[in-house]
Amino acid sequence: MDNLIYSLHWFYFIVMAVGALYFYSLSRNPRGVPRYEYLIAIFIPCWSGLAYLSIALGQGFLDTDSGIVYFARYLDWVVTTPLLLLALALTAMFYKKKKDKAIIGALIGADVIMILTGLIADFSSGLQTYIWYTLGVIALVVILYIIWYPLRKMAQSSSAELGRHYNRTALYLTAFWVAYPTVWILGPSGLGLTQSITEVLSFIILPIFSKVGFSILDLGGLRKIGLETGNGYDVSG
Amino acid sequence: MDNLIYSLHWFYFIVMAVGALYFYSLSRNPRGVPRYEYLIAIFIPCWSGLAYLSIALGQGFLDTDSGIVYFARYLDWVVTTPLLLLALALTAMFYKKKKDKAIIGALIGADVIMILTGLIADFSSGLQTYIWYTLGVIALVVILYIIWYPLRKMAQSSSAELGRHYNRTALYLTAFWVAYPTVWILGPSGLGLTQSITEVLSFIILPIFSKVGFSILDLGGLRKIGLETGNGYDVSG
Amino acid sequence: MDNLIYSLHWFYFIVMAVGALYFYSLSRNPRGVPRYEYLIAIFIPCWSGLAYLSIALGQGFLDTDSGIVYFARYLDWVVTTPLLLLALALTAMFYKKKKDKAIIGALIGADVIMILTGLIADFSSGLQTYIWYTLGVIALVVILYIIWYPLRKMAQSSSAELGRHYNRTALYLTAFWVAYPTVWILGPSGLGLTQSITEVLSFIILPIFSKVGFSILDLGGLRKIGLETGNGYDVSG
Repeated sequence: MDNLIYSLHWFYFIVMAVGALYFYSLSRNPRGVPRYEYLIAIFIPCWSGLAYLSIALGQGFLDTDSGIVYFARYLDWVVTTPLLLLALALTAMFYKKKKDKAIIGALIGADVIMILTGLIADFSSGLQTYIWYTLGVIALVVILYIIWYPLRKMAQSSSAELGRHYNRTALYLTAFWVAYPTVWILGPSGLGLTQSITEVLSFIILPIFSKVGFSILDLGGLRKIGLETGNGYDVSG
Repeated sequence: MDNLIYSLHWFYFIVMAVGALYFYSLSRNPRGVPRYEYLIAIFIPCWSGLAYLSIALGQGFLDTDSGIVYFARYLDWVVTTPLLLLALALTAMFYKKKKDKAIIGALIGADVIMILTGLIADFSSGLQTYIWYTLGVIALVVILYIIWYPLRKMAQSSSAELGRHYNRTALYLTAFWVAYPTVWILGPSGLGLTQSITEVLSFIILPIFSKVGFSILDLGGLRKIGLETGNGYDVSG
Repeated sequence: MDNLIYSLHWFYFIVMAVGALYFYSLSRNPRGVPRYEYLIAIFIPCWSGLAYLSIALGQGFLDTDSGIVYFARYLDWVVTTPLLLLALALTAMFYKKKKDKAIIGALIGADVIMILTGLIADFSSGLQTYIWYTLGVIALVVILYIIWYPLRKMAQSSSAELGRHYNRTALYLTAFWVAYPTVWILGPSGLGLTQSITEVLSFIILPIFSKVGFSILDLGGLRKIGLETGNGYDVSG
């Protein structure tokens, strides 16, 4: 890898550190949003930043015959993507005292399958790659179904304002998550159409928006709702 | 591996896919059985099918000096066996509003130890193999103790019908789980008495019964009980 | 490794087995302490003992260019240290019916980061080692902050006796946990000042006190409190 790519990973690490500190500062004045929402928002950039740091330090990737495999990315995603989905699900269940564990379990199960099939696809070649890639896309479709049907209904039946906030947040997440496999299939792990540098840029810019950007949007909306509705629920959970 | 073995793994993958779709279709008409029971029943064949698919694609095993180690099987078991035990424990606690997390934790802890010691045994040789194997069997004994004493008492004290259903389901699981280490010790990872093809056949037939078969039996019984007793508890959990 | 080191690991394995049996015997007469406290105390030495057994059997370490990396230790810690923190957090929340999952999540998140950065540091060299080591120490500082501020306040606001017991237990854990990175930085993975045998001795003696010793102290105090206060809460959880 050349120096530009190392610099980009350092840049990403710093953005994540700043993001974590920002969410920590928000948590000092929670405005009716439960603490676990802040905790999730803080942990995601910590974990993701460490994964990218390992790449910046020349450790989190493998030089294989079929190109560089950034396995640290998958280590990042297998933890942060379930947490992003958990944050979205908890947003939909904002007013529910008892969280729906079956839906959360289904989301996380499908997500872990999506990330692992992506990892195996990255280490595969030829037809194998496309079989695993297809299975990963099926898992993504299941996730999107859960986000846009049962979860959305839950948010909308709680309050009109929560419904609108949920729609915005879910749409934001959907747009970025659909972008990932698109970049992947166009990139060197897939069809090899775009250059490695483009792919790496995408894997710097996309995750910043889909992680720190997502939490800014989600927490911002919840803080507005939490402030207006007051302490209608237990903040301590 | 020869073509027959590849074909058998493809066959297994298809059976699991059909099983997952079947449990999904049952979940559309839950009949008083909580959704998480269906979720567990759906996730188990999805995960197990993917693990076997990796073997069918020539990826999920290693050719070592002491024979082929199918590590994908352990990746399968380390996820599906805790879920099978969770399903059984939740069956015993069918009428309990507050699930007993200590018992579930003990079951899963012992189970993870059982699977990991089995994996290490498979990568070991000589005396080491038998030490790890013995520790795995001890973990199995702990699991069977929990199944047949505290959990069984819980099911029987709830209702006579649940007690009978639990006994049937626990006996079914016990029979198949005792068969696993028996096949293992007789097979090439252990004493090497039986041929590899016999072992692989056992690792196709046994898991179909102990996974999809188990869930058919468990869900079938719960659906009968759920239908009769009505909505005596919260289905949403 | 020489025979002394193997013997020491066998010795550790036996101590852990005795510890697990001791906590099991205590659990037969719980004295108002919830069963999950015993379960955690039993599971920790089981898991840790198995990890050290793998070293005693010549399996749980790698001979690398920069010295022996005992990866089984990290496999030990990544499971047992979250459980030790969970036990301490549950002690602070002894009288709370609803456990504070946000605090437990924060503790476990920081802890997993601490162990993983330590593992990467052990496999790194030069400057990399110190970057990862520093990040691990930051995670430890976060853990100690949570232990000594929010958790301590929780324990002290519950009862004076629980507050005293919590202080004792937290101080004990803090002392041993601060000793770990000190030994590490002085040892061959870090500065290389002390000899390998000293380090191994430290990794036998320290963990016995910080695992079995911790649980003896914690359970002993809770049993005294539980006996005096009677069944003021739900033992079944």
